[in-house]
Amino acid sequence: MTVPHVPDVHPAWLPPEAFRAAGARRVLVLGDDSAPAETVRAEVADACERHGGAVAAPGEACDLVLALSSAAGLPAEARALLGPEIGAEGFVLARRDGVTVVLADDPAGLLYGWFEVARLGEAAFGEARPARAHRPALRRRMLDHWDNIDVHPVMGQVERGYSGGSIFWLDGALRADLTRVRAYGRLLAATGVNAVAINNVNVHTAEAHLLTDRLGEVAAVAAELRPYGIRVHLSVNFASPITLGGLDSADPLDEAVREWWTRTTGRVYETIPDFGGYVVKADSEGQPGPFAYGRSHADGANMLADALAPHGGVVFWRAFVYNHRQDWRDRSTDRARAAHDHFAPLDGRFRDNAILQVKYGPMDFQTREPVSPVIAAMPATRLAVELQVTQEYTGQQRHVCYLGPMWSEVLGFRFWGPGERAVADVAAGGGLVAVSNVGDDPYWTGHPLAQANLYAFGRLAWSPELDPAAILDEWIGLTFPGASGLVRDTLHEMMDGSWETYERYTAPLGVGFMVRPGHHYGPDVDGYEYTPWGTYHFADRDGVGVDRTRATGTGYTGQYPAPWSEVYESLAECPDELLLFFHHVPYEHVLQSGVTVVQHIYDTHFAGAEEAAGIRLAWEKLAGSVDPALYARVQERLDEQVRCAEEWRDQVNTYFLRKSGVPDARGRQIY
Amino acid sequence: MTVPHVPDVHPAWLPPEAFRAAGARRVLVLGDDSAPAETVRAEVADACERHGGAVAAPGEACDLVLALSSAAGLPAEARALLGPEIGAEGFVLARRDGVTVVLADDPAGLLYGWFEVARLGEAAFGEARPARAHRPALRRRMLDHWDNIDVHPVMGQVERGYSGGSIFWLDGALRADLTRVRAYGRLLAATGVNAVAINNVNVHTAEAHLLTDRLGEVAAVAAELRPYGIRVHLSVNFASPITLGGLDSADPLDEAVREWWTRTTGRVYETIPDFGGYVVKADSEGQPGPFAYGRSHADGANMLADALAPHGGVVFWRAFVYNHRQDWRDRSTDRARAAHDHFAPLDGRFRDNAILQVKYGPMDFQTREPVSPVIAAMPATRLAVELQVTQEYTGQQRHVCYLGPMWSEVLGFRFWGPGERAVADVAAGGGLVAVSNVGDDPYWTGHPLAQANLYAFGRLAWSPELDPAAILDEWIGLTFPGASGLVRDTLHEMMDGSWETYERYTAPLGVGFMVRPGHHYGPDVDGYEYTPWGTYHFADRDGVGVDRTRATGTGYTGQYPAPWSEVYESLAECPDELLLFFHHVPYEHVLQSGVTVVQHIYDTHFAGAEEAAGIRLAWEKLAGSVDPALYARVQERLDEQVRCAEEWRDQVNTYFLRKSGVPDARGRQIY
Repeated sequence: MTVPHVPDVHPAWLPPEAFRAAGARRVLVLGDDSAPAETVRAEVADACERHGGAVAAPGEACDLVLALSSAAGLPAEARALLGPEIGAEGFVLARRDGVTVVLADDPAGLLYGWFEVARLGEAAFGEARPARAHRPALRRRMLDHWDNIDVHPVMGQVERGYSGGSIFWLDGALRADLTRVRAYGRLLAATGVNAVAINNVNVHTAEAHLLTDRLGEVAAVAAELRPYGIRVHLSVNFASPITLGGLDSADPLDEAVREWWTRTTGRVYETIPDFGGYVVKADSEGQPGPFAYGRSHADGANMLADALAPHGGVVFWRAFVYNHRQDWRDRSTDRARAAHDHFAPLDGRFRDNAILQVKYGPMDFQTREPVSPVIAAMPATRLAVELQVTQEYTGQQRHVCYLGPMWSEVLGFRFWGPGERAVADVAAGGGLVAVSNVGDDPYWTGHPLAQANLYAFGRLAWSPELDPAAILDEWIGLTFPGASGLVRDTLHEMMDGSWETYERYTAPLGVGFMVRPGHHYGPDVDGYEYTPWGTYHFADRDGVGVDRTRATGTGYTGQYPAPWSEVYESLAECPDELLLFFHHVPYEHVLQSGVTVVQHIYDTHFAGAEEAAGIRLAWEKLAGSVDPALYARVQERLDEQVRCAEEWRDQVNTYFLRKSGVPDARGRQIY
Repeated sequence: MTVPHVPDVHPAWLPPEAFRAAGARRVLVLGDDSAPAETVRAEVADACERHGGAVAAPGEACDLVLALSSAAGLPAEARALLGPEIGAEGFVLARRDGVTVVLADDPAGLLYGWFEVARLGEAAFGEARPARAHRPALRRRMLDHWDNIDVHPVMGQVERGYSGGSIFWLDGALRADLTRVRAYGRLLAATGVNAVAINNVNVHTAEAHLLTDRLGEVAAVAAELRPYGIRVHLSVNFASPITLGGLDSADPLDEAVREWWTRTTGRVYETIPDFGGYVVKADSEGQPGPFAYGRSHADGANMLADALAPHGGVVFWRAFVYNHRQDWRDRSTDRARAAHDHFAPLDGRFRDNAILQVKYGPMDFQTREPVSPVIAAMPATRLAVELQVTQEYTGQQRHVCYLGPMWSEVLGFRFWGPGERAVADVAAGGGLVAVSNVGDDPYWTGHPLAQANLYAFGRLAWSPELDPAAILDEWIGLTFPGASGLVRDTLHEMMDGSWETYERYTAPLGVGFMVRPGHHYGPDVDGYEYTPWGTYHFADRDGVGVDRTRATGTGYTGQYPAPWSEVYESLAECPDELLLFFHHVPYEHVLQSGVTVVQHIYDTHFAGAEEAAGIRLAWEKLAGSVDPALYARVQERLDEQVRCAEEWRDQVNTYFLRKSGVPDARGRQIY
């Protein structure tokens, strides 16, 4: 095991300098022969060699101890921390008598503790620290890659990818050199991520074979990620028994089908004993699923869960099921209702190792959506919440849009009111999943500042209560070692509020989907208005928005428990930022903020575009303070962000001026 | 030379039965050793063998004589027709004393005469016919193929093709069997077409090489088309001296560049002595052109004309030059003005063998446009008018849309008022060009009834004064031999008014471009409204349309001579069907027809969709009366037409109801 350093690829939040504090000291590791423990030893050796410290032998004096609680020969400082169970993947960190101690029950905990020490830097070796236990709040912290082996004619190598090609595949084959995959695993481990799905949920022909005759490629990737405590998962095609197995059915209650999955899954585990499990997009946007056989999604998921259970695997079963051939004329069908309508009645019918993977909002990763009511509706089901780190609808890594604040809001949302459980609590036993924003780009994420989203995802999955600005601060400190106050302050100035800025210049008041169809970049107010996708705003000359009330609309508000079922139902109480998601209102409707809807549209769009220009201006302060290549890359993207924000501003404002006829109260230029 | 019959491919308007009348008789051919004369002999032999007639030797009794006026041994019936010059490609047809005679000055005329005899059928051998001279009204009658050798990632094998792949290329190479190309030439010759350009005007990498190292492929195609009197043309890339020739410039005034073209063109003619010439799309939608060197389009075209002149070739230089990166906010730029602005000042500066190829309308092949004022503005320039047989904007061969009436209107349009010259007269010395609708589909044109458009194009290019309904009647008679009155009447019922039906259910009153961006199929009222393409309708809550008047608009009306400059300028006089092309009017504006604009929109859209349903219903009358496979193919397309027409109706009506707030006077369902 060697620590991966990839030449010509940006080190993201793990530059060598991140390990200077620990690497300059005497470090004792007391692990076992597991892969993560060996990784910790390699990491320590690498850091010490680089920064002049030393790997200590048991009994020698040391400044840092990283030890398993079960290890023999624990020094006194570590023994002092022994006590009640720390728990899976957790660790206790303390400093006393000049020694910093990380104690863990399992090797993964040791690994996470090591990265916590890196995060703390010199602070880990300063004043005494009382013992503090760190445990992941969510059991599964997972990134889904929508990577294709073969370049898809429409969707490309990475579906919704904005960072180049796949780090796994090139030219239809697994890459020969997988060092970068290991480096990716290392970056993820440093944030707390413990699971990766390596192929697109839309499983095309070549990718389907990863389950059988191309399993060796999965094993090769698993070998790279294992040292960093990451289990590999595979997206599988529900029709595999037919397409790969030669059966004439994929019916989940058909014995031959079930046996095929059992046998196939067995072979996967023979090859990859710590394989994580499957991800399935079924009966969704054209993918095959159990509906074809008159079976429920519980039937479908349970079949796979049963095949995986003997091996400790899980199936992530996506709840993204809706009618994507809707008639726009039909106002009674409401896509927002679909997941709840389909899945809530199935609560309690899923196996314990079947995890229902629910997008955070009822639609599709919009900049602003209410939290999906499915998450509140299935107390007897293991749930994972799905986010999108890749910025499909939030600027496609051409726009600065730090998503930490959005995710923090989602994870902290309390369906049953203040003091009740938050989304993160509901999903604790399931997990937090996100679509990755990583590709083979030298900066990993296209836009260098989009690395912060990847970092924040892992950190929030571990500790949902963290302040997004504090996470960003961590990220800045690690990524820009020795960052001056100017760098730190400027990046906060640019990024802290960038999600809300993006929201301001794009679709207003929660209405969503005013993007160009297909690629989803840039404005097109009516682009999805007359399509089969169920994504409408119903703007006419009098007003705009979707009536989802029980009183007069689609009844979607009734899918929420109180108090939100009442809050969203009420025109007066519904939060401004979601008003058009729940209500169709006249342009002159006065928001809680005191301005009319149409004036709010004008104001926010002018403000948002101005803020985008401000972000670009702020960056210019950093010329000479950051690496010139990184500076140039960000600057080029900021130019596009400013251009695009102005385009959004003008198209949205013009559209609503033409429709409403209401002039801007401040007389600004609308076309 | 053998007459091409391709198995499993529909014979279109040349089924064997089309030659029954002539083929059952004794036919004397007196030609020369030219390719077309040999073709006539082969055609006659083929027909006689099939239908029991006989090839007559000179001096033998015969029923039909096809003779060159210069031939020795003309029978008396032919000698009687000798007189003043018949002219290039023309023929004289007469019947007297029981003998039908076709006399021509050149072999091409003989060929066209032969197909005229086929068209007449038994009528050619009935009562006596006085001698009538047939001469093509337009000198060049040409089909442009937008075929690519390599499948383009976005545009496919045939750009804007709706009939399968290319008949020339497959899998990146010339097809091994070109019989179908010859059969295509035969079909075209039967309509009077005498020129084909075989590759896309957007000349990509592989296709650029047809000019040099892939010239053999062009020669092979030319060999197949030559027997039917068709000269092959090539679309060339203006930057070829750089990309193919290794020069560092393509400046048309650079001697090295000119020499490269001279040399390259010389080699083309060495290989293909009857090569027709070049087609060029320059400085248009991203294609290279003379603007890069500060040169005019006359400079560019003349360079190529000079290279071609010694060999008798011509260059078709497209006038489709406009700013395709326009800012939609900028209302002063008017794409409709562009071609006139660019080219009118160049009148008189083009060589005699440079033909300016002008789209029939100022925009881009819309269902309804005014005729391009460029056609009236360049009396000292040879002009070709460009049409689109491929139905890019007129239903993509999924909709029945017989375009004969549209083209007839265009060709008969008189810029200078009644009694003055028509468009066809202006273009007589240039030509009529159209983008082909043919691919490797078994019916040639995807929709079997779209064959009628290909047929009508050739016939109108030969005789612009023909009645489109009469042309359709010819086509029915040839394509459905022995067609019953039911078949004939039903096809007229379905097709005669199908262009206007299509217009009714799509974009209203000449406004155009309410299609889905990119592929251009189906409705999207705002699809092009905020794009850089210069294609706007400016609909707001009060009104719709583009003000192109001199008084208050872009001044485009001033590009027309009187009387049209006045007619179009006048809100009262402007023809209803073009109102929104020229004027921005309130929804309540009353048309000459007596209804308001918005009510017209509702009425025509309801009517158009109803008519589409009527077309489908009519077809059902023909079950059992036409070939079942053809019946099924048409029926499947009609289902899509009806569905799509309803979609157009509902989207357009809903859009304008939402914007105008004006209810339908007849209370019909709008969403």
